Order: sequence, then C-alpha cells, then structure tokens
Amino acid sequence: MKLKVYGDRLSQPTRAVIIFCKLNGIDFEEIRIDLLKRQHLSPQFREINPMKQVPAIVDGKFKLFESHAILRYLACAFPGVADHWYPADLFTRARINSVLDWHHSNLRRGTVTLVFNTVLGSAFGLPLNPQAAAEGEKILSSSLSTIESIWLGENGKFLLGSSQPSIADLSLVCEIMQLELLDEKYINRLLGPRKKILQWIEDTRNATAPHFDELNTILFKAKSKFRGQSSGQKYGTKSSIKAMLSSKM
Amino acid sequence: MKLKVYGDRLSQPTRAVIIFCKLNGIDFEEIRIDLLKRQHLSPQFREINPMKQVPAIVDGKFKLFESHAILRYLACAFPGVADHWYPADLFTRARINSVLDWHHSNLRRGTVTLVFNTVLGSAFGLPLNPQAAAEGEKILSSSLSTIESIWLGENGKFLLGSSQPSIADLSLVCEIMQLELLDEKYINRLLGPRKKILQWIEDTRNATAPHFDELNTILFKAKSKFRGQSSGQKYGTKSSIKAMLSSKM
Repeated sequence: MKLKVYGDRLSQPTRAVIIFCKLNGIDFEEIRIDLLKRQHLSPQFREINPMKQVPAIVDGKFKLFESHAILRYLACAFPGVADHWYPADLFTRARINSVLDWHHSNLRRGTVTLVFNTVLGSAFGLPLNPQAAAEGEKILSSSLSTIESIWLGENGKFLLGSSQPSIADLSLVCEIMQLELLDEKYINRLLGPRKKILQWIEDTRNATAPHFDELNTILFKAKSKFRGQSSGQKYGTKSSIKAMLSSKM
Repeated sequence: MKLKVYGDRLSQPTRAVIIFCKLNGIDFEEIRIDLLKRQHLSPQFREINPMKQVPAIVDGKFKLFESHAILRYLACAFPGVADHWYPADLFTRARINSVLDWHHSNLRRGTVTLVFNTVLGSAFGLPLNPQAAAEGEKILSSSLSTIESIWLGENGKFLLGSSQPSIADLSLVCEIMQLELLDEKYINRLLGPRKKILQWIEDTRNATAPHFDELNTILFKAKSKFRGQSSGQKYGTKSSIKAMLSSKM
C-alpha cells in the first residue's frame, strides 16, 4: 500500500515532508487537508492524527505525526534515501537531532507567532495581536542570528558544515520560506542583512530542485490573495526572498 | 575519558539526563553550571555549548546539547542501555520521537512559561508577568489533557501503551516535576483532577528509583528557599505532588 501524506502546502512542515518524498523517489499519495476550511478539525482526520495537525502520514497500518519524527522515519524506512539526509553515523545524526530539537522553541516559534499575528490569523478569522507579532519577530530575529553564527558557522554550504543537505536543512529552510507571506518590510528587516542565510536558502533550493519551487508556489498565491483581500490591491505572485537574493548576492 | 555532563539540577532536562546516566550505569562526571550564578553565560561554558543552555555533554572530543538529542545519543552510544529506553524497532522509535517533538511547543513551553513567570523569574532578578503566567498555565493544562487522552490513552503503564518507560516518559515526567516549585494552588488545579498523570508520575518514579527522588530533592529545597524569601515564612521540603498522590489514589 502506497504511503499517504496528509497535509496542506500552506503548512511549512507539510512542504518539507512532501519535498523529501519527491526528492527521494518515495511513492506517495498526497491527501489535502485544507486548513482554511478547518478540515484538520474533522472527525475523519482526527482518526489519522488526534492532535488535529498537519502533516501526518499513514504507511500501511502505521500512523505518525510531527514532521521531524516523520522525516526521521522516512529516512530510515525507505532504503532509497541517501545517507546525507539523516546519516547513520552516530555523531552526525546526534548533531542533526540537536538542530531539529532546537528548532521548535526558536525558529519555529518565532516564525509561527509572527506570521500568524500579522497575516494568517485573519485568514482563519481570528484577531491579530501586534504585541505577539513583535515578540515573534524578536524570537525569529535571534534565531536567524544563531543559525548564522552557530549552525552555519562552519565551512560547508549546509548546516553543521556539511557539503550536502540533511533533514534539518530542509525543515529549517521550509520554515523560513513561510516569511514569503509577510509584508516586504518584515522580509527586508529580517533577511536583508543576512547574506549567509540567503545563500543557504539558495543552496537548499538548488539541492532540492525542482520540488522546492514547486511546493513554495502556494505561498506566492496565498500572499497575493491575503494581501489583496485586506488592501483591495493586486499583488504579483513572485518570490520576495528570491528577488532579494538576486539583488544582494 | 569519562562522559562529562554539564548541568544544573534545577533544570528539568538536566535532571532527565543525569537520571538516565545513573539508571543505565553510564560512568559520568557531573559538572555543575549554576544557573542562578549565571555560570551558563560564562566564556568557558560557551566553549561547551554556544547556546549557553544546560544540559550539555562532552564525550571524548564530541560535544552535544539539547536534552532530547543527548538522551537519544546516550541510548545509542552506550551498549549497556536497555532497548526499552529508545527501542531499535523503527515504528516504536518513530512514535517516541513524535512524543519528544510534540513536547517542545506544548508541555515544555507551558511549564517553562508558567514556572518562570510565577517563581523562577524573581530568582533571576527579572520581573514576573502574570499575563504570561496565565498563558503558560493554559498551554500546560491543555498539554496535560493531551497526555492523558492520547499518550496515556492506551493500555500499559507508560506513554504509548508501553509496559516499560522510554526516554519520552523520563523527559516529560521530569518536566512535570518542575511544578513542585509552584504554589499549592497551581499544583492542585493542574494535577489534582488528573489521576492518570499522577499514577504515571508514580510509575516513572518507581521505575527510576532511587535516582528520581534523589535528583528531585533540589526542587523542594529551592521551593522552600524561593518562597521563604518572598513571604518570610518557613516552608517544608516535602514533595507536594507525592503528597497529592497518596491522598488521591
């Protein structure tokens, strides 16, 4: 039975899991759980993931959620996956786990808090909280600095000085791509001064082409939709981060 | 060269790592990094962990931080560790990873936010934020309900229906024990109605005796000290959670 991936491409961990499957030739069926239509709260989806969150997978009779647990599982369960994604070497794997664990209370928390309280909250019909958005931006900014100074501080294109990407690169870069939903002022402020981060995003994009761009398309469409709704203006469907990269590098 | 564990027993993930080492006969040296004396911010400790957080380990030349990454590493690197702590079976391991990943943005976030904004902040000379404390209690309460209904929802004494504890039980129970630092009113409100959680704490305590009680001693001393400072009263050094368990079960 084919692997089933339940998710919404608007969710950054869903994109990471789908890119991973596509890159590694894992045969899977993508089942859309439309977050804006509240499909993650349905009794049917609760049978798949009682936490009511995407992504989740079903592999035969086995159900799993939490994207990092899913990525680790897929890397180990599917023999075609190249070792660099989640190396068997105990020390390298432990350091990748360290990045993945750090992610939750830092980059992820900052991004989710900022994006939800400036853009996504409205799309879910919830009030935006500017104070929470400011707090989110602070956590996010500090997390980006940490990535530059510590995780990308070693030689090598990818995290931890590696010459090839791991599941940590994939998860963290997909998280940062969520910033495409924000106003230019945030993107400029957060990513403008951070050339190492911009180069790392570009290196990850190249290493995961063409799936990276394919999966991120939804962000530019969503941005255009959300911002058009609030301002009445028309917005393009281009990547602000990619444009910044071309101008800065 | 002996494993070095850098930590402060006042930190719940430090306690989890030390209990794990003691239980599994891992020969280690405990190096205290006194958080209240800001030793985690020293240039010397930054060489061990650039994130300036405890716990961290040094195993020969290998440095690692993030407690879940450390527990996973120790379980795999030391041959004497029983399989149930982090089973080699791909499916069981994946589900344990799922609990460990969930923990960060739920139980941990709730506990840290509540405890810091009611007790620990003052000890660090920082202002307490009642609004943040209330938000922390909300996240914590919801996380405890999730543990009861989902993770402890299957047969078996431990998480995921297991008959023996895993590193997820150890990490999550150590987190909950941090509530010993709080006023009785919080402990009663949060744990009083949750018999399954109380029984699970007791089962984990028994499965990790005598190290669990030994490591938690610091909490009762710290509570007595912090509360005595703020009220001028004398407090006992007994476990409120243990007392609750005896009266409820």
